[in-house]
Amino acid sequence: MLKMLNEDRLFPADPETRKVARRLFAEIEHLPLICPHGHTEPQWFSKNENFADPAQLLIVPDHYVLRMLVSQGISLDMLGVPDHTGVAKQTDGREIWRLFAENYHLFRGTPSRLWFDYTLEFLFGATDTLSAQNSDAVYDQISACLAEQSFKPRALFDRFNIEVLATTDACTDDLKAHRDIRESDWNGRVVPTYRPDAAIDPDHPDLLNNIEKMGAQTNEKVSTWQGYLNAHRARRTYFKSMGATATDHGHPSALTADLPLEDCEALYAKVLNGKTSDMDKELFRAQMLTEMAGMSVEDGLVMQLHPGSVRNHNQSVFKTFGRDKGFDIPKSVSFVDALQPLLNKYGMDKRLSLILFTLDETTYARELAPLAGAYPSLKLGPAWWFHDSPAGMMRYREMTTETAGFYNTAGFNDDTRAFPSIPARHDVARRVDCAFLAKQVTEHLIKEDDAVEIAIDLTYRLAKQAYNL
Amino acid sequence: MLKMLNEDRLFPADPETRKVARRLFAEIEHLPLICPHGHTEPQWFSKNENFADPAQLLIVPDHYVLRMLVSQGISLDMLGVPDHTGVAKQTDGREIWRLFAENYHLFRGTPSRLWFDYTLEFLFGATDTLSAQNSDAVYDQISACLAEQSFKPRALFDRFNIEVLATTDACTDDLKAHRDIRESDWNGRVVPTYRPDAAIDPDHPDLLNNIEKMGAQTNEKVSTWQGYLNAHRARRTYFKSMGATATDHGHPSALTADLPLEDCEALYAKVLNGKTSDMDKELFRAQMLTEMAGMSVEDGLVMQLHPGSVRNHNQSVFKTFGRDKGFDIPKSVSFVDALQPLLNKYGMDKRLSLILFTLDETTYARELAPLAGAYPSLKLGPAWWFHDSPAGMMRYREMTTETAGFYNTAGFNDDTRAFPSIPARHDVARRVDCAFLAKQVTEHLIKEDDAVEIAIDLTYRLAKQAYNL
Amino acid sequence: MLKMLNEDRLFPADPETRKVARRLFAEIEHLPLICPHGHTEPQWFSKNENFADPAQLLIVPDHYVLRMLVSQGISLDMLGVPDHTGVAKQTDGREIWRLFAENYHLFRGTPSRLWFDYTLEFLFGATDTLSAQNSDAVYDQISACLAEQSFKPRALFDRFNIEVLATTDACTDDLKAHRDIRESDWNGRVVPTYRPDAAIDPDHPDLLNNIEKMGAQTNEKVSTWQGYLNAHRARRTYFKSMGATATDHGHPSALTADLPLEDCEALYAKVLNGKTSDMDKELFRAQMLTEMAGMSVEDGLVMQLHPGSVRNHNQSVFKTFGRDKGFDIPKSVSFVDALQPLLNKYGMDKRLSLILFTLDETTYARELAPLAGAYPSLKLGPAWWFHDSPAGMMRYREMTTETAGFYNTAGFNDDTRAFPSIPARHDVARRVDCAFLAKQVTEHLIKEDDAVEIAIDLTYRLAKQAYNL
Repeated sequence: MLKMLNEDRLFPADPETRKVARRLFAEIEHLPLICPHGHTEPQWFSKNENFADPAQLLIVPDHYVLRMLVSQGISLDMLGVPDHTGVAKQTDGREIWRLFAENYHLFRGTPSRLWFDYTLEFLFGATDTLSAQNSDAVYDQISACLAEQSFKPRALFDRFNIEVLATTDACTDDLKAHRDIRESDWNGRVVPTYRPDAAIDPDHPDLLNNIEKMGAQTNEKVSTWQGYLNAHRARRTYFKSMGATATDHGHPSALTADLPLEDCEALYAKVLNGKTSDMDKELFRAQMLTEMAGMSVEDGLVMQLHPGSVRNHNQSVFKTFGRDKGFDIPKSVSFVDALQPLLNKYGMDKRLSLILFTLDETTYARELAPLAGAYPSLKLGPAWWFHDSPAGMMRYREMTTETAGFYNTAGFNDDTRAFPSIPARHDVARRVDCAFLAKQVTEHLIKEDDAVEIAIDLTYRLAKQAYNL
Repeated sequence: MLKMLNEDRLFPADPETRKVARRLFAEIEHLPLICPHGHTEPQWFSKNENFADPAQLLIVPDHYVLRMLVSQGISLDMLGVPDHTGVAKQTDGREIWRLFAENYHLFRGTPSRLWFDYTLEFLFGATDTLSAQNSDAVYDQISACLAEQSFKPRALFDRFNIEVLATTDACTDDLKAHRDIRESDWNGRVVPTYRPDAAIDPDHPDLLNNIEKMGAQTNEKVSTWQGYLNAHRARRTYFKSMGATATDHGHPSALTADLPLEDCEALYAKVLNGKTSDMDKELFRAQMLTEMAGMSVEDGLVMQLHPGSVRNHNQSVFKTFGRDKGFDIPKSVSFVDALQPLLNKYGMDKRLSLILFTLDETTYARELAPLAGAYPSLKLGPAWWFHDSPAGMMRYREMTTETAGFYNTAGFNDDTRAFPSIPARHDVARRVDCAFLAKQVTEHLIKEDDAVEIAIDLTYRLAKQAYNL
Repeated sequence: MLKMLNEDRLFPADPETRKVARRLFAEIEHLPLICPHGHTEPQWFSKNENFADPAQLLIVPDHYVLRMLVSQGISLDMLGVPDHTGVAKQTDGREIWRLFAENYHLFRGTPSRLWFDYTLEFLFGATDTLSAQNSDAVYDQISACLAEQSFKPRALFDRFNIEVLATTDACTDDLKAHRDIRESDWNGRVVPTYRPDAAIDPDHPDLLNNIEKMGAQTNEKVSTWQGYLNAHRARRTYFKSMGATATDHGHPSALTADLPLEDCEALYAKVLNGKTSDMDKELFRAQMLTEMAGMSVEDGLVMQLHPGSVRNHNQSVFKTFGRDKGFDIPKSVSFVDALQPLLNKYGMDKRLSLILFTLDETTYARELAPLAGAYPSLKLGPAWWFHDSPAGMMRYREMTTETAGFYNTAGFNDDTRAFPSIPARHDVARRVDCAFLAKQVTEHLIKEDDAVEIAIDLTYRLAKQAYNL
C-alpha cells in the first residue's frame, strides 16, 4: 500500500550494512519522541481546535518551502504570505497548494521532500507523489482529514507518541496556554522554553518595551543592571514553575564576555538610553550570555546557544514581509575565543549544561568536538536547520564522534513549527543514525550490541538527560 | 581494446548502485556537450589550422600539469615554459613529453590523470599507460594524429559533439576571430564571453590603457564615470551582437558595494589618477560588480563571479614566467555580507542571473546553497578548478543539494584551455553525477525515473537555461 | 583467539572493495614502522627500565583519555593527574584504572578506543572488552606483563619492528639520553628532533632563561640578533650530530615574516627586554620561522610546522594542572598569506623541505593541497592530533589527493607519548590508507598494481624520504 516511501530509505546500499541498519532501526523505531526544542504553538494544544486548510498548515509558515519556491521566481505574494501589516494577496489555500504541487520537483534531493512525502503518506494517506495532476485531490484528502477529531492537535500529539514537547516562548510571555494545558484533563506534556533574545538584544526594535514589561511582570526595578538581572531570574523561575527545563539564545555570534560590574552597569545604561555602538551591542549580548550561564548554574535550566545566522538578508523581503521568510543566511562563526570568557567562569562547573548548535559545519571537528570533548558543561546539539538533513546529519556524526564521542551530544530535536512533520523528522534522524552506526558495525569499529545501546541513547536517553526531561 | 579505462570508472562499488549508475549514464552519455565557460582560443576555430606538437598542445599550457611537476622539483624551464619575454629554454617537444611521461605516476589519484588517460586512449588511440618506456612511441602517435585533417579544431569540435562553446575574451577584444567564425561556412557555435577584469581592476598594470582603448572603441568619454559605464554598456552590446550570452568576473573577493553617485565619481577619478589605496581598489571592484549586475538587468547577459584566488603567489615564478603558471592559491572567502549590497539592489529581480563559483568549499553548505536557495537571481556554478575532480564534484553535490536542490545549479562547465580534454572532463562530470544520483536512488531518496530526468537536467538542460544558450 | 578486533576492521563494507583492501594490506602489514615524529622519552630507551603501573603508563599521560573523562564530569584529581607542584591526589593506579574501565563506553566511536583495544589485545593478551567487571583482572594482567624482560622499552621497540623513532627535544636539551643510546650496545635507532619553541616564543615564561642557556651551550653572544641566530645554528648542528634530521615548530599561527636586518635586531632587543606587544610577539615568531627555513636550507634539517592550536583554553585547569591536559582547542588558521614571506624567500629552493600540519581541515583542499602541489619545498604532514583517526585520515586523503597527489605527502607519523600504542596507531593508518586505495581501485581510478606501490609509499618510503631517514 505504501507507494512513496521505501522501508529501507536512507539505509546504506551495501546489503550487509543495510541488514545491520534494519536491525538497529527495529530497536528504536517505536521509541517515544522526545522533542526538547521546537516552535509549535502552545495554543494548538490548549485550545485543541482543528487545523484550518492544508496550505495554511503546511506551506505558508514553512520557510524551507517558501525559500525554495522563491528561489525559482515564485513570489511570496503568490504563496499567500501576508505582508507585515497582515494582509495576504493570495488567500485561496487550494491555489497556493497547486502552486506548490506544480513545483514539487524543485524539492528533489532535499529534506523537505522527505518530510512531505512521509507526512502525506503516513498522516494523510496519500499514495502517489504530489504533482500538478493530483494537487486538488490531495488537497481535498488533507482537508477532509484535518476536519476529523483524530486530527486535532492533542490527538495527533498522542498518535505521534510524543513523550514531551518543548515550545519556544518569549521571556515576557504570560504562558497562559501552557497554564491552560497543565490545568486541563489532557496529560500530554508540553513545556515552555525561556527565550529572552528580544529582551536582551539591543538590535531588537522592541527591546525597551520588553524590558519594561519584564519589570512590570516581576516588580523589579529594571532601570538598574541588578534589577534587570533579577527580572530575568524571576521570569526564569516562573518559566520553571510552568515546566520549563531550558533557555534558548539565538545570537548573531557566540561571543561571551565577563566584564567588571561597573562596566556592566555602564553598558546597560547605554542600552537603556539607546546610545550604543555596534560594538556595545555585541558586548552586551556577550555579557548577557555569561549572565545567563550564571543563572543556569543557580536554577538548573539548561542553556542552548544558536549563533551564526545573518537574519533578514534581503531588505526588500524584510520590509514587505517581515522576519523568518527564508532569507536568513549562515555565516562563518568561531567558538574558541568567543566562548572563553564564559567557559573560564563556568565551564568546569557541572551544574551548567550548555548545548551548542552551529550552522557552520567547519566548526564541528575543529572547535565544537574538541570543546565538548573537554568541558563538562558543554554538549553538542544535533545538526541544525539547513543541516537537519540526511547528508547534514551524517557529516555531523562523522565530524564530531571521533573527538567528542556519542555521550557529549544531546540527541535529536526537530526544531520545527510544522507540527505534522514531527514524526517525519524523527524518522529521518533515527534512520541516519542507524545508517551511521551500521557502517561502524560492518567496518568493525563498534560491536552490534553496543550499537543497539548507542542507537537507543541517541534516539531517546541523551535528549532526556541533556534537557533534564 | 580499451586498455586503460574501465567502462565502470567512477561508479560506486556496490553492485546494485553501480547498475543504477550505468542505467543513468546510458541515458546521458551521448547528449551533446554544452560548454558555456572555457578558455579555448577562438583563433583555433576561425583559422582551423592543425595543432602543433603534442607538448605544446597538452603540456606547456596546462597549469594543472605544470604545478604538479614543479612541486616535485622539475623547473618550468625544463618544461618548455617561455619566460615573460617569450623565450623558452626547452623547445624540443619530445624532451618535454618525455619528462612528463617519466613522472606520470605523480598524477595518480588526480583528475589530470583521468583526463589524460581518456584523451590518450579515446582521441589518440593509446592502449597503455604512459611511461618512460612508451613516451616516444606515444609522442609519435599523437604527432601523427595531429597532422591529420580529422584532428583540425573544427573537426574535433564536431567529433566531440559540442553544441555550443563559449570562449573568454577581454572586454577590449575586437572579436575578429569570432566574427570570422560567424562569417565562415562552418556552423559550429562558438561564442565570446565579456571579461572586463583588466578594464576594472585597479591592480591590473594595463588598466588605464584598457580604459582608453574602450573609449576609442565606443566613442565614450571614459574620463568620466558615466562615460566609463557607457563604454562598458557599448562593449557588452557588441559582445552580445557577436553571440555572447554572459560576462565573467574574476575578483579577489566577492565584495560588492552600492555607493552614492558622487562617491562613485570620486572613486573613479582616484582610479584614473592612480592614487588609490588598497581599500579604494577593493571598493572600486566591489562597486563595479554591482554596476555589472545592473547592466545585466538591462541587457540580459548572464553574470559569472569567480572570487577567492590569490594570484601569482610566488614572486620569483611570476617575475620570470608571468601569470597562470600554477601558483594561484585559493583562500578563505565569504559571500554573505560581501554580496549583500548587490543583492539588496538586484537580488530579487528575475532579470538578473548571477552564477557564483567558489574555491572555498566551506561556503557550499554554509553560504552558497542558502543564498541560491533563496534569491531568484542566483545560481551555483559547478565545482570549480581544483574541485573539478571526482571527489570535488561529489562534495559539491553532497553539500549543496539538500539546501539549494538541483534546480538552482547551473550544470557543468569545463573551464579549460586544453581543448582535446573537453570530452574527458564532461565524461568525468557526467559519471560523478550519475554516481551521486545512483546512491540517492539506491537509498530510496529519489526515484529512478526522476533520477533520469535530473541526470539529463544536470548534463544538458540546466547549463543551456542558466546561460541562455 | 582474538576476541576484540576483527581482522577486517576499518575495511570498506562492500565485499569486492574489502577484498582489494585485504590484498593491499597484506603487502604492507609487516613493513617496519617509521616513526619520524613523536613524544616518547629517550630515557626509556637509554635506561631501559621496566615501565611502572598500567595507569601511569596508559592513562595519566594520555590527554586524549583525560579530556574525554573530564568532559563527562570526572576530575583530573580523580585520574591521578599531579598538580603543577607535582602532587597527585590519587596515586593508586588500580583505582585510576577502574575509573577508566567503568567509563570505557565513553570512547565508543573514538580512535582512543581502537588504540586501546589493539594494545590490550595484541600487547597484553586481553580477550574481552574492558569493563567495570574485568577492570582489576586486566590491571593485574598488564602489571604482570610490564614486569617482564620482554616488556622493557628496548624489547618492545624491537618487537614493534620500529626502524627509526624520533623524539621531540627542547633545543636546550643536552641530549644525554640520546648520547647514551648511541653509545650503548643496542642498535635501535632513536633520534632527536630540534624543538626551539621555548627559546623563540616571547609568550613562553622561560624564554630568557632558555636563550641564556643556549648562549652558555654555544659560547655565542645571545644578547645580539646574530649571536642568537648563531646559537640556533650551533645547537642544530649538535642535534644533527646526535642523529636529528628534523626540526619542529608549534606556533599559534602559520605567520611568517621577512623583515630587514635592522628591524629584526630591534625586534629581538624588544624581546630580550620584555617590552613586546602581542603584535611584536607574533612578528618575532613569524620572522623566526623564516630564519629557521634559512637554516634548513643551510644544514638540511627538515622543518615541521604545527600551527593553529589555542593552548590551555581553560584558565583554572591550566593554573591547577599545567599544560597538555586536554584543553588545547584548534581554531581557524590560514596558510596562504601567512606563508608567503617565507615561500617567496625559500619556497622554490629544493634544499628546503617544510612539512605542514593543520588542525583546520578546511585548509586541506583550499590551501594546503594547492600549496604543496606547487611549491617544491612543501610537503603535507599526515592528519594530525584530533584528525589522527579513521574518518579524519579518510577526509585527509579525499581532500588532498586530487590536488597534491600522493607524492607531496609525508607518510604517517604517530605523534604520541603513549609508546605501547604505536603499533595500534600505525595499524589504523595503514588500514585506512588501504581502504582509501581499495575504493579507488574498485571505482577504476587507480589500477591495483599501482595501488600496491602507493600503499608501500604511504606506509614506508614517503616518511623515510620526507624526513631524510
